[in-house]
Amino acid sequence: MNKNLFAKTPPMGWNSYDYYDTSVNEEQVRKTAEYMAENLKEFGWEYVVVDIEWYSYDTGSQRDKYQYIPFWKVEMDEYSRLLPCVDKFPSAKEGNGFKPLADYIHSLGLKFGIHIMRGIPRQAAHEHTKILGSKALANDIADPSNICDWNPDMYGVRPDADGAQEYYDSIFELYAQWGVDFIKCDDICRMDMPSAKKEIEMLYNAIQKCGREIVLSLSPGPAKIEEAWHYEKYANMWRITDDFWDRWDLLLPMFWRCELWQNHVSEGCYPDCDMLTLGKLGKGFGHEWECNFSHDEQITLMTLWSIFRSPLMLGADLLQLDDWTKKLITNKDVLGLLKHSEGARQIERDDEHVIWCSKDTEDGSYYMAVFNLKEQNCDVAIPWEDVKNYGVTGTKAVELWNHEDVDLIDKDSVFVASHGAKLFKIQ
Amino acid sequence: MNKNLFAKTPPMGWNSYDYYDTSVNEEQVRKTAEYMAENLKEFGWEYVVVDIEWYSYDTGSQRDKYQYIPFWKVEMDEYSRLLPCVDKFPSAKEGNGFKPLADYIHSLGLKFGIHIMRGIPRQAAHEHTKILGSKALANDIADPSNICDWNPDMYGVRPDADGAQEYYDSIFELYAQWGVDFIKCDDICRMDMPSAKKEIEMLYNAIQKCGREIVLSLSPGPAKIEEAWHYEKYANMWRITDDFWDRWDLLLPMFWRCELWQNHVSEGCYPDCDMLTLGKLGKGFGHEWECNFSHDEQITLMTLWSIFRSPLMLGADLLQLDDWTKKLITNKDVLGLLKHSEGARQIERDDEHVIWCSKDTEDGSYYMAVFNLKEQNCDVAIPWEDVKNYGVTGTKAVELWNHEDVDLIDKDSVFVASHGAKLFKIQ
Amino acid sequence: MNKNLFAKTPPMGWNSYDYYDTSVNEEQVRKTAEYMAENLKEFGWEYVVVDIEWYSYDTGSQRDKYQYIPFWKVEMDEYSRLLPCVDKFPSAKEGNGFKPLADYIHSLGLKFGIHIMRGIPRQAAHEHTKILGSKALANDIADPSNICDWNPDMYGVRPDADGAQEYYDSIFELYAQWGVDFIKCDDICRMDMPSAKKEIEMLYNAIQKCGREIVLSLSPGPAKIEEAWHYEKYANMWRITDDFWDRWDLLLPMFWRCELWQNHVSEGCYPDCDMLTLGKLGKGFGHEWECNFSHDEQITLMTLWSIFRSPLMLGADLLQLDDWTKKLITNKDVLGLLKHSEGARQIERDDEHVIWCSKDTEDGSYYMAVFNLKEQNCDVAIPWEDVKNYGVTGTKAVELWNHEDVDLIDKDSVFVASHGAKLFKIQ
Amino acid sequence: MNKNLFAKTPPMGWNSYDYYDTSVNEEQVRKTAEYMAENLKEFGWEYVVVDIEWYSYDTGSQRDKYQYIPFWKVEMDEYSRLLPCVDKFPSAKEGNGFKPLADYIHSLGLKFGIHIMRGIPRQAAHEHTKILGSKALANDIADPSNICDWNPDMYGVRPDADGAQEYYDSIFELYAQWGVDFIKCDDICRMDMPSAKKEIEMLYNAIQKCGREIVLSLSPGPAKIEEAWHYEKYANMWRITDDFWDRWDLLLPMFWRCELWQNHVSEGCYPDCDMLTLGKLGKGFGHEWECNFSHDEQITLMTLWSIFRSPLMLGADLLQLDDWTKKLITNKDVLGLLKHSEGARQIERDDEHVIWCSKDTEDGSYYMAVFNLKEQNCDVAIPWEDVKNYGVTGTKAVELWNHEDVDLIDKDSVFVASHGAKLFKIQ
Repeated sequence: MNKNLFAKTPPMGWNSYDYYDTSVNEEQVRKTAEYMAENLKEFGWEYVVVDIEWYSYDTGSQRDKYQYIPFWKVEMDEYSRLLPCVDKFPSAKEGNGFKPLADYIHSLGLKFGIHIMRGIPRQAAHEHTKILGSKALANDIADPSNICDWNPDMYGVRPDADGAQEYYDSIFELYAQWGVDFIKCDDICRMDMPSAKKEIEMLYNAIQKCGREIVLSLSPGPAKIEEAWHYEKYANMWRITDDFWDRWDLLLPMFWRCELWQNHVSEGCYPDCDMLTLGKLGKGFGHEWECNFSHDEQITLMTLWSIFRSPLMLGADLLQLDDWTKKLITNKDVLGLLKHSEGARQIERDDEHVIWCSKDTEDGSYYMAVFNLKEQNCDVAIPWEDVKNYGVTGTKAVELWNHEDVDLIDKDSVFVASHGAKLFKIQ
Repeated sequence: MNKNLFAKTPPMGWNSYDYYDTSVNEEQVRKTAEYMAENLKEFGWEYVVVDIEWYSYDTGSQRDKYQYIPFWKVEMDEYSRLLPCVDKFPSAKEGNGFKPLADYIHSLGLKFGIHIMRGIPRQAAHEHTKILGSKALANDIADPSNICDWNPDMYGVRPDADGAQEYYDSIFELYAQWGVDFIKCDDICRMDMPSAKKEIEMLYNAIQKCGREIVLSLSPGPAKIEEAWHYEKYANMWRITDDFWDRWDLLLPMFWRCELWQNHVSEGCYPDCDMLTLGKLGKGFGHEWECNFSHDEQITLMTLWSIFRSPLMLGADLLQLDDWTKKLITNKDVLGLLKHSEGARQIERDDEHVIWCSKDTEDGSYYMAVFNLKEQNCDVAIPWEDVKNYGVTGTKAVELWNHEDVDLIDKDSVFVASHGAKLFKIQ
Repeated sequence: MNKNLFAKTPPMGWNSYDYYDTSVNEEQVRKTAEYMAENLKEFGWEYVVVDIEWYSYDTGSQRDKYQYIPFWKVEMDEYSRLLPCVDKFPSAKEGNGFKPLADYIHSLGLKFGIHIMRGIPRQAAHEHTKILGSKALANDIADPSNICDWNPDMYGVRPDADGAQEYYDSIFELYAQWGVDFIKCDDICRMDMPSAKKEIEMLYNAIQKCGREIVLSLSPGPAKIEEAWHYEKYANMWRITDDFWDRWDLLLPMFWRCELWQNHVSEGCYPDCDMLTLGKLGKGFGHEWECNFSHDEQITLMTLWSIFRSPLMLGADLLQLDDWTKKLITNKDVLGLLKHSEGARQIERDDEHVIWCSKDTEDGSYYMAVFNLKEQNCDVAIPWEDVKNYGVTGTKAVELWNHEDVDLIDKDSVFVASHGAKLFKIQ
Repeated sequence: MNKNLFAKTPPMGWNSYDYYDTSVNEEQVRKTAEYMAENLKEFGWEYVVVDIEWYSYDTGSQRDKYQYIPFWKVEMDEYSRLLPCVDKFPSAKEGNGFKPLADYIHSLGLKFGIHIMRGIPRQAAHEHTKILGSKALANDIADPSNICDWNPDMYGVRPDADGAQEYYDSIFELYAQWGVDFIKCDDICRMDMPSAKKEIEMLYNAIQKCGREIVLSLSPGPAKIEEAWHYEKYANMWRITDDFWDRWDLLLPMFWRCELWQNHVSEGCYPDCDMLTLGKLGKGFGHEWECNFSHDEQITLMTLWSIFRSPLMLGADLLQLDDWTKKLITNKDVLGLLKHSEGARQIERDDEHVIWCSKDTEDGSYYMAVFNLKEQNCDVAIPWEDVKNYGVTGTKAVELWNHEDVDLIDKDSVFVASHGAKLFKIQ
């Protein structure tokens, strides 16, 4: 199986983390999927992803002290494999796992994803539980000194131990049985430990063996540019930033992160700018809030993610989606850049503005995004020489957010709102 | 001018450094060019490059103490621009500069290149000499704290100073007048100083303005992978290693350097593995020697450089080229990879062997290079699944070094000599 | 209690690690103590220290795979406190702990020490066991992300958690009941984690509260010079090197380690050069061997440790002590430097030789150690100007290893064997 | 000569930098010295130090662009030795150097110091000038790649070059002839370059040879704690901070800097907290200002510097000294700590308060400084157990800033103003 064919364009969907943290339950996932099927599917949104600690009990119950309660009860089978916590996912009872939920999501015409932590449960190592397909026990493959800094659930595995690949094979065999389409594996692409690369390869091998086209997404980032070739060989997407949230001081550095990774976007290979922090957020973190970005900043966010061709994963509570946000995420022209553009390059960047260009793969047109980083609205100069060196020859354009036609032939500059963006399609 | 069109395939030529160090003179350059025109031009070799300190007097005269004699006499015009030392380059007399030499090399159907150090001569700063096209003086644009660690000739320029861009414009105006086709700028792509990027941009701008298609080569390396996008935007080639020499412990790390940069080779953009340390070397360093690589190691070197599509610059004294070496560097099939292959990727690498594949752009065939890193001859296993995932479907092959036809259909492995390589073209 | 009075001179004793690794048992400890009492006590040797994993079962049984078997059975009481493994320490049965063994060692006129790992047992955290004197449970104070890199037994404690100090208090209360005189706490003075300092302070506080004068020794080193003031305030000795073994390439760097720490030796405060790797070593590591140091190197070792006033802990199997080694460690004049010298300073050091001086606190004499680092015997020049600046005025001397009298008045240099040392007492 | 005897207590004086920057002239120095002799000498103030670029022309004339004008005219003798610029120091005419000025300062009963930059003038290297007492020329000993990051005047010297020690000998011979008592050598104790240590040793050697007791002060800091032993062996004082100015965010870190260096203060060896930024400051920097510290912060500054026993160098313009500041710097009891206290140790420090203690060497009393770091006035708790462990037994005290008697016997805490300090002498 050629893993690049699992995701021929950047995945688009929803992830439970930004709104629910560790606390999402089955009913919420089902309702969210229903909303997506009815309202967003036609625009390309299709993945429904359950994020971290679906296997843990009492998640969120000590949120003032812990995001992840250490040394707490998790659901696990006899082969050291985590299962959904039945308190949160009732259909997982009697060993069903996520199969009923995945089936339902598939019935809506959507795809189903889950989050996992790299490694094997600490509980398994301390209890000496079995590994399917191997004589080794969990304590034989768990590496006691290889842990995640921020989550207490797992030990990394010793890549060279008998049973290590078998353990990963066994969990992907289970995920394939459940009907999982997308795995977001965490604690795996920001590490300095020599084992991280090996664990990525074990994940890849397990997917190849499991017989199902499962998209592999690596977290948390920032991934290492010096290992770009390795992510490209073994994974489908990898985070190029630590957790992104709705703050301008986090959006601003995304410009240099995209600058850094601009030459690494290709079919099946997507540097990932992280979730879209739009709409209602944060309920599971202790207090629900409305996205802190201004409308112009949200346009900047959507414009950059789209021209760069990052995967797009909604963080919003879809069940409370307001009209403005809904319109923002259903602009077919803008989302079209994920489907039929390529070769995006930063043309210019300084402290006040940024220009990107890319090329449409279908009709020979070009795209030009113009960002204003200043605190004031202003005219942003267009560096025509560099834009033309990129390949743009025409001047007739349509701005894709306001749908206005404009001839750029005499334009030395473009007016852009503070922290906002314009996105032109140029013939 | 689109700088990518200046070098549509990786430059091939000869550089004076590995044999002559700082001491090369005009007669030696002319004779080398003549040899190249008669013997190598037909195979694609075309650049003749004069390396470091062509402007300095008495180079090599204190070689036991200094490679570069500090605070010594250099030839410089009234505009702070270095000129060829007439002791070494007699035709440069009367302000001719390198024009007579360049003209001669052009008359042979070849191209002419020179080495420069980033910055402005220290002597100019201390003497307050003029800058052409600016009211600023050398001391106004020289940055006293921005120096090269290993060469005492220059101060870096202050990128924001009036006169800085004018200085670079003025030297490239001169180089264009001389007929220079290729500039190797040193002390510019391994630095942590914030000015390095700006100086690369000033070089680019100066070339754009000078009206001549001058290939820009950056040294000394290792260049920074996180600035790959910047090199790709402004330069044609950049060193991915510090100075390379004929030692296995330096050749071995080239495999991971190529691994690192494999996704950054494109038209006009070439990560540079450094000169080919073949044949006779080192006379200017104090004692001439014969290349220390075994024949098999030389085949490994040529195979890796070629499939990766590094620029190829001969370090050997061409005037003493032996038959074996000559044959090595005139294998049209191997050199053809520079001209008509693309997408080279490392398929597998461990401590014992390496496999690379690439694709021919003309006839739909594929290339597969198989390297044996071990101290013993051995059979190297072919990872067929990965090779096929890369795109290879056929099995009929010709080995490009021994020209033997072979059908790989039943081959699990290939026999390769210790430290050697085989390079297959597969239909 | 003023902790500096617990060890008015550098502690001297024996530690089980270098010979027995994790496997030492009660009978071996008792016999070693008996030997010390009969043969070494009169020369100042008094501590008998049981090193790592006295609480673990099956230690050494998987030595080819693990030094410390992860996730294995340990002896622990209901309050999360580790107890001696009864398989190895039979007298610890019925909750006696180390009391019977400590009583026996005290009956011989010696002192008893044990090794501990910083933190609380991982097993306790996973089993939610109690903390004596606190409502908190082990899982409340264990920090899941704070682990030792090389030993799997413990989690670090959260310094600010309720129950953290109580846990340390509870273990030292137990150690005081047992009669422990010396604690070597490991995984505590090479860490970058912010908690290490806090854990040192908790250890200090627990000792102050326990009512017994327990010497506190920190491991593994190299300790951080920038925290010297902190070690001096809270501990008695701290390792200035990672584990030391009988190799010249490890002995050589001890000269600059001592150089670095020379100004930090004072009453109750001892930078620690680690164990004396003499005699028979390594049985628990899989194969017993004879100390690899030459006799001259052993003299260098003893001379440097003594003039620097490092604690002296024998690593040898005392039950097989040969005459030469016994004589080496029972030289009263040399060992006297620990008892009655001060102000040791490095006078000169280069790649070939080292000179140290110190001052006797009782009779106004001075000490001068002369080391020859070369591979040949040679005359080492004495830098008389610096030696006199240090304070030495006399010239009549006795060499403390060969007991010969010598007048240095006309000596420009001293003959020293390769890798050897001379140690003069000068009046 | 034992260099520790050159400064048996921490030096006290005035330095031209904080007020005059590079622009101080002879008349200003003379008047300042006169003021000191009349008003401050009796309190221990005695050094008058001329800081940076006394040898440079036109200093301050391009202050908007440069603090130090690069590649500009300096006064230098035929032996590559810098001389005072006669424009600023008229008495230096006819080769007199600083002798007339030093003589005058000596006539007032004071001592004279100057600032130098490590190394040899760049101008000397480029002009190939001579070295007194050596056949080497300046270009033979100047190291072109060893420069100061922030000042363009000098090249470092090659420590192993013939002529290097002779150069340093020659400048100290000159300084001794002039009557210099104090050298502040800059660009020498914050460097990573291996040569810095060697240059400190060359300075030491030159002082030993010159026959005059010249105090050696190293700048700019922060010095490296791991080289403490080296500073202690070869210098008298060394900066433990980069340039200190009158800002609370710079004063606050001085507490941990003193914490770090507390064990390294001894006769002739003084970690240096930098100049006292009091009174009028900054005229040479472009605009004169009044010390930004509140009165309480100034008391904190004087208290910490004094109990720590830092050298005290006034940065204020003495000719405009106000009464409050004058009183602050003439408190005999406080300044007495420099003369007759020892063993200062930090007893406690957290984000809100700091406690230090030290011991009087004459009358057996103790000192206790109590600092309040908070933004509010408050009662600061006294950690009596630690204070008593330090040695304090009495309770009758006098506060040295307000001269009030107080019995601390029932005091759990002491009231201290925000950012202020109290300093008790306890019998």
